[in-house]
Amino acid sequence: MDLHDLIAALPDGTVLTDADLLASYRQDWARDPDAGTALAVVRATSTDDVSATLRWATAHRVPVIPRGAGSGLSGGATAVDGAIVLTTERMRDITVDPVTRTAVVQPGLLNAEVKRAVAEHGLWYPPDPSSFEICSIGGNAATNAGGLCCVKYGVTTDYVLGMQVALADGTVVRLGGPRLKDSAGLSLTKLFVGSEGTLGVITELTLRLLPAQPPQSTVVASFPTLTAATEAILTITGELRPSMLEFMDSVSINAVEDELRMGLDRQAAALLVARSDAPGEFARREAEIMAAACEKAGATEVFHTEDPAEGEAFAAARRLAIPAVEKLGPLLLEDVGVPLPRLGDLVSGVAEIAERNAVTVSVIAHAGDGNTHPLIVHDPSDADLTERAHRAFGEIMDLAIALGGTITGEHGVGRLKKAWLPDQLGPDVMALTRRIKDALDPDGILNPGAIL
Amino acid sequence: MDLHDLIAALPDGTVLTDADLLASYRQDWARDPDAGTALAVVRATSTDDVSATLRWATAHRVPVIPRGAGSGLSGGATAVDGAIVLTTERMRDITVDPVTRTAVVQPGLLNAEVKRAVAEHGLWYPPDPSSFEICSIGGNAATNAGGLCCVKYGVTTDYVLGMQVALADGTVVRLGGPRLKDSAGLSLTKLFVGSEGTLGVITELTLRLLPAQPPQSTVVASFPTLTAATEAILTITGELRPSMLEFMDSVSINAVEDELRMGLDRQAAALLVARSDAPGEFARREAEIMAAACEKAGATEVFHTEDPAEGEAFAAARRLAIPAVEKLGPLLLEDVGVPLPRLGDLVSGVAEIAERNAVTVSVIAHAGDGNTHPLIVHDPSDADLTERAHRAFGEIMDLAIALGGTITGEHGVGRLKKAWLPDQLGPDVMALTRRIKDALDPDGILNPGAIL
Repeated sequence: MDLHDLIAALPDGTVLTDADLLASYRQDWARDPDAGTALAVVRATSTDDVSATLRWATAHRVPVIPRGAGSGLSGGATAVDGAIVLTTERMRDITVDPVTRTAVVQPGLLNAEVKRAVAEHGLWYPPDPSSFEICSIGGNAATNAGGLCCVKYGVTTDYVLGMQVALADGTVVRLGGPRLKDSAGLSLTKLFVGSEGTLGVITELTLRLLPAQPPQSTVVASFPTLTAATEAILTITGELRPSMLEFMDSVSINAVEDELRMGLDRQAAALLVARSDAPGEFARREAEIMAAACEKAGATEVFHTEDPAEGEAFAAARRLAIPAVEKLGPLLLEDVGVPLPRLGDLVSGVAEIAERNAVTVSVIAHAGDGNTHPLIVHDPSDADLTERAHRAFGEIMDLAIALGGTITGEHGVGRLKKAWLPDQLGPDVMALTRRIKDALDPDGILNPGAIL
Repeated sequence: MDLHDLIAALPDGTVLTDADLLASYRQDWARDPDAGTALAVVRATSTDDVSATLRWATAHRVPVIPRGAGSGLSGGATAVDGAIVLTTERMRDITVDPVTRTAVVQPGLLNAEVKRAVAEHGLWYPPDPSSFEICSIGGNAATNAGGLCCVKYGVTTDYVLGMQVALADGTVVRLGGPRLKDSAGLSLTKLFVGSEGTLGVITELTLRLLPAQPPQSTVVASFPTLTAATEAILTITGELRPSMLEFMDSVSINAVEDELRMGLDRQAAALLVARSDAPGEFARREAEIMAAACEKAGATEVFHTEDPAEGEAFAAARRLAIPAVEKLGPLLLEDVGVPLPRLGDLVSGVAEIAERNAVTVSVIAHAGDGNTHPLIVHDPSDADLTERAHRAFGEIMDLAIALGGTITGEHGVGRLKKAWLPDQLGPDVMALTRRIKDALDPDGILNPGAIL
């Protein structure tokens, strides 16, 4: 493929073909061993760059793999042989409007950078994937990312009021805007959120912001059994809306404790970290209600703090769980969710799957919203273990579907989970998805192999 | 057209062709004088009925006008000659699940009935169109309806987690479910919300619920000028998130006072009704902040109450504004929204348009989110006045677009506003809309003439 026209259409240094660099853009954090190698990486600096790249790609029928920070866990940004990897990591502008409580951001800004920029205006962008320090806001929108606060504050789509998006043929459209209410035409903004780069490339987002989050009270509780922990979760969510309600199992508790030495109870079967951000003394009152629920469910130890920094240390410990467990070996990362009453069934079912396949599966969860991350430890040099790990990976998704849940709560389908998507959605919804994909990307150049 | 197959496919009494009845289903509350007359009205009792009707309509290329309670204000349910009006008003089941804080509801239930049913479980469905006692939840989803609490709690789409929807050819699909987080596949649920019956017919909704709303504190303030009122609005929204922030102008104040005799200040240029539902004494504190903002902006009278019933009386007065102003004459109902900082420009611009066209325009507004309802009084027996009213109707939408706003914040485009939609969205977004419409409704039988 002749890249001359593309190179000529873009600013100097935007199109890169160096072999080492191409190699570094082959995979995202899903580390898909089947990743291909791109023809070139385009590091766009503007909407125009994105548009020109797509125009060229359509003209030459070259696949385009849109990429944010490359921190995706489902292989949504895995390179394909002969494709262009189109990264928005250099598009990093942000404008905050405190009056409308909105921010206009480019996709390459990290989630944490968005949070910091709006905090300077006393505002808050709630969605908080555990990877918030390294994941991009564009990737968050593309996967409809979640996080820890979603149990109370919802997911990315709830904060996207508008966007600029470049379509497959390079046409750039502006959808929605800084308005809480807008019923003019189809809900196109929301369609592009979660579309994982298969319908267009987001080049700008208009985000809804909230006033700064009040200081949180924090409860940490250790449980002797998984049943006791899930009972506490259901009691808590039935009585109030925590601002965070996180679950760690024994494997992850010990992995995190190995890293942090912060005094977590290594004997516990499960640990809950629950927080409240209700105003003033209501945070403490809600924390007391949550602590009482944990005690009633049989917690062996319940710790309660009003100190935001101390509470944040436990939230950070929970966020560290994935990298900590990863020290045990490479992980197959699950992201299955179930309706909350089935959480106990999911957790016990995962334990059975782990035992049956003789693999280690650590479960951490955004327990309050039923979204769990079973982490399957494997070893690429052990073919038999790897096969068992992959079998467990599929069985966990089968289980989630059987429990009325989803194969992915917040990571997206990408390439790793797409084989299971028809089992969840069924043939009619897959056909509907295909009709929309074909209408918006008739040549199939946008992120081929992701979702569909 | 031979209706025999349709009648045979549906339960007895579902297909109605009585002339009086057909006449009563010609219009919705937009009272479009150009409404046609349907071939038949299908009063569906189940998803199967809806599916069978669409299957028949596709086979015979007969247009279908989906209809909820018929309370729409943009003519989204206006009948078309030779069409089937497909009403979901008899589909009225609801199941509330307090554990997942969700409700599964059929589309014919009224918004108020949903609120009451979930309140029995200590739960709350926030979206609250002023018409909540007479509008259906299916219609709310079809128009992405808003209301008074949206300034703090968002709009209908923020509460729709899943749905069952019948597609143009009668295929029934289930999308989403009782899960706060779900990134599996395209965001199809959200695409159908706000699609005004042009992509499918919603036969069931899974709604997200919140814990019961705490008691609200209420501030009512009278202002000598529109400028003073808009200044207060911007100060209030900059300092906190009210649970309601409503605006009435002089015409609507007097029209409501004529009805209710509750002692509203007839001399005022504007009235604000602001509420806080922060927990415990924080509601009073927020009300004090809002009252102080009103006083600082020059309010002539500021009233403040902790009594929920007394506060609700003022909210009800605001909700009565449209029917009260309607006593002055038939109304052309606007629904334009602007980014909040442009609210003053919109209100003063509407006054200029009214003067230039020599028509009475009363402005009421969900001021906190920039969504306004200019009410244009006309008289169908006065051709010249009617023409001027229609000109003002268009000019107000032109103004909203020029101010970076929307032609409809919560009512939908329907048939009344579709001529202005291309001006707001532009040709590329219209083309994108058309591609999705054609992909999902290739024969164009679903609500033809609405939106597109």
